[in-house]
Amino acid sequence: MRVFGIDCGTEVTGFGVVDSDESSSNRQLVCRTIGSIRLAKSKALPERLAEVYATLTTELERWRPEVVAIEEVFYSVNAKSALKLGQVRGVALLAAARLGIRVAEYAPLSIKSSVVGYGLAKKEQVQFMVARLLCLEELPEPFDAADALAIAICHLHTSQTLAQQGALR
Amino acid sequence: MRVFGIDCGTEVTGFGVVDSDESSSNRQLVCRTIGSIRLAKSKALPERLAEVYATLTTELERWRPEVVAIEEVFYSVNAKSALKLGQVRGVALLAAARLGIRVAEYAPLSIKSSVVGYGLAKKEQVQFMVARLLCLEELPEPFDAADALAIAICHLHTSQTLAQQGALR
Repeated sequence: MRVFGIDCGTEVTGFGVVDSDESSSNRQLVCRTIGSIRLAKSKALPERLAEVYATLTTELERWRPEVVAIEEVFYSVNAKSALKLGQVRGVALLAAARLGIRVAEYAPLSIKSSVVGYGLAKKEQVQFMVARLLCLEELPEPFDAADALAIAICHLHTSQTLAQQGALR
Repeated sequence: MRVFGIDCGTEVTGFGVVDSDESSSNRQLVCRTIGSIRLAKSKALPERLAEVYATLTTELERWRPEVVAIEEVFYSVNAKSALKLGQVRGVALLAAARLGIRVAEYAPLSIKSSVVGYGLAKKEQVQFMVARLLCLEELPEPFDAADALAIAICHLHTSQTLAQQGALR
């Protein structure tokens, strides 16, 4: 299974692709790509959104994932930040929808629990564990891209658990 | 000048096209179209956003406005509503950006002041004044579409004022 993780942000949006080899017994996870879109503050908002949309669409078309995994809305931010983040998130969801790719959402707590084993883990801990789980030689940079990989890993872990539960029934 | 007004909402997004005849002395405003996109709650969010994007893109391509006018972010809503609204707004801005159409933003207070002469006017008052200013035989429905026309009118009034000020210098 191939999962495309997206970590939306008002300044930087990270993305990453993770494959899981379902045929191998240990289900090794492999990182295929990692990237981030840094939004130029000098550009007008509509242009910036168009840039996020175009980059994500290009990458989704290139990697053709089965699923796009994205962080669930985090409500404790203030309304101003939430609206800005929502604009980027809307464009990311649209990119997936227009290519007919299913979207799965995970709460920040679930993502961190799934990758680090601790729901309140720090960014550095997530980054470190993502590198370990994907056998990367270097830490994935920036944090936004590491978070995107974490979201993808969370989806793969969740799918495996569900599949195992199904097999046990 | 032709202006396409958009009133983004998490349930209904209204739109409307207003032309101003710059050659006539009284600069009569004419409503060309009015519509609204009601989002089915049964559909998943990415699909709903795709519907908003597709409808707005079709209408923008049909009417080819010089400007898209949209309400400025209203910060007093809570974070949850702001994020939801942001997702729709992001998609609306993207539709304009991808067609190369300029976007102008107006604060709710400015829009109401421009149309009703009172910044805290109620929806019914906006609807009534929009119908009068555009010489409509019936009240524009739903409120979201009336608001979209009000945003377009606000842009035309603002442009006229700026043009007059320029002419006076």
